[in-house]
Amino acid sequence: MKLYSYFRSSAAYRVRIALNLKKLEAEVIPIHLLKNGGEQHSAAYRQINPSELVPALLEANAEQGFTLTQSLSILEYLDEKFTDTVLLPKNIQQRALIRAFSQSIACDIHPLNNLRVLQYLSAALEVSDEQKTAWYTHWIEVGFAGLEAQLKHSNGQFCFGNSASFADCCLIPQVYNALRFNIDLSAYPKIQSIYTHCNTLSAFQNAAPEAQADAA
Amino acid sequence: MKLYSYFRSSAAYRVRIALNLKKLEAEVIPIHLLKNGGEQHSAAYRQINPSELVPALLEANAEQGFTLTQSLSILEYLDEKFTDTVLLPKNIQQRALIRAFSQSIACDIHPLNNLRVLQYLSAALEVSDEQKTAWYTHWIEVGFAGLEAQLKHSNGQFCFGNSASFADCCLIPQVYNALRFNIDLSAYPKIQSIYTHCNTLSAFQNAAPEAQADAA
Repeated sequence: MKLYSYFRSSAAYRVRIALNLKKLEAEVIPIHLLKNGGEQHSAAYRQINPSELVPALLEANAEQGFTLTQSLSILEYLDEKFTDTVLLPKNIQQRALIRAFSQSIACDIHPLNNLRVLQYLSAALEVSDEQKTAWYTHWIEVGFAGLEAQLKHSNGQFCFGNSASFADCCLIPQVYNALRFNIDLSAYPKIQSIYTHCNTLSAFQNAAPEAQADAA
Repeated sequence: MKLYSYFRSSAAYRVRIALNLKKLEAEVIPIHLLKNGGEQHSAAYRQINPSELVPALLEANAEQGFTLTQSLSILEYLDEKFTDTVLLPKNIQQRALIRAFSQSIACDIHPLNNLRVLQYLSAALEVSDEQKTAWYTHWIEVGFAGLEAQLKHSNGQFCFGNSASFADCCLIPQVYNALRFNIDLSAYPKIQSIYTHCNTLSAFQNAAPEAQADAA
C-alpha cells in the first residue's frame, strides 16, 4: 500500500495512526500542500485524487489497482480488510457512537479549519489574522464542547473504553492542531486525559507530524 | 424511532431518504434552526444532541435508550441493524468507494456551506452577500468537480450502479441545495442525470424539504 500524506494534514495523521495501531505497512509518499503552489493541485496528483486533497491510499496489488480517498473511508476499509486488530467493536450501538464522535471531528470541526479554508479567508475574503484566529478558535470551542459531552460517560483510557478506535484516530490529530494554534483546552478534561494517554503509545507517537520524513 | 429534523437541513434530508429507501418508520420531530434563536440551541435539545445540530435519531425502545447523531453514522447504524434493503454492498472496495464519495460531500462540501457557517460569515466577519455567494459557489464548484470525477466510470441510474446507496442519500440533498443557490450545474452531467433519476422515485420525493410537515 502507498499512503499519500502531508505531515501536518490532520486527515493523513488519522490514517497513519490507524495503520500503526493495526500494524500495517504502507509506503508514505509526501505531497507538500504548500510548496510549488500546492503539490495536491498537480496534474499527477489529480489523477490519484481528483478532489486534490490528502490523504489517498493506493492498493497497488488489488485487482485493477484501487485508489481510495477520505480518511474515514480509508479507516473503514482497513478495518474491514485487516481484522487482526480492529478499531470498531462488534456491537452495533457502540460502532455507531464511535462513528458519530469521529464524524463530529471530520465533518464539523476539521473542514472549517483546514489549510484551503484558511487560505480562502485570507485571499478572497481578506480577513485579518485576528479574525482568522477567532474563526479557528470558534469552531474548535463549539466542536470540543460537543466532543467533551459525548465523552461524558467515558471512563477508559481511550475515547470509548480501553481499546483504541476510530475516535482516537480522529481526536488526537484534532487536539494536536488545536494546541498548535494555542487554544486553551482546560474546559475539556476528558479530551486532555485521552490525548495524554494516547501520546504515550508508539502507534500515536510514530504517526505524529514531527515524526514524518517530510517534516524537515 | 424518532428523527429530529429540519426540513431544509441537508444532513436530515440524507437520513429521511435512507429511512424511505429502507422502508423504515420514524416519527419526525421538527427542530427549527432559525425560529426562537434556533431551537437546536435550546436546553431541551442540547440534552439530545450536545453539538446542537440536526439530525439526531432516538431509538426509544433500545436498551437504556440510545440517541445517535451525525447523518452518516445514522446511515451506517440503520444499514447494520435493518438488513432487508441495504445501502452498502458487500464488496469491501465498493463500500469504500461509496463511503469516500459520501464523505466528499459530508466532510468537504456541506460543512462549509451550512447555516451556522453562513451566519458566522455575516455576523462575525461582516462579509457582503456577494462574497457569501462567492464562498458558497466556490466550495460547490471545487467539490462537484471532484464528485463528477469520482463518477467517471459510473454508468448506472444511481451513483454506484443500479441500486441506491449512501452516495445517493448524500448527493441528492447537496444538489438540491446547490440549485436553491442557483449554481450552474451544466459542467456535471453525471450528477445531473443521477439527480433527475432519483427524483422520479417516491423515497426521494417524500424526503424532500417541501414534502415535510415543517416546510409550511
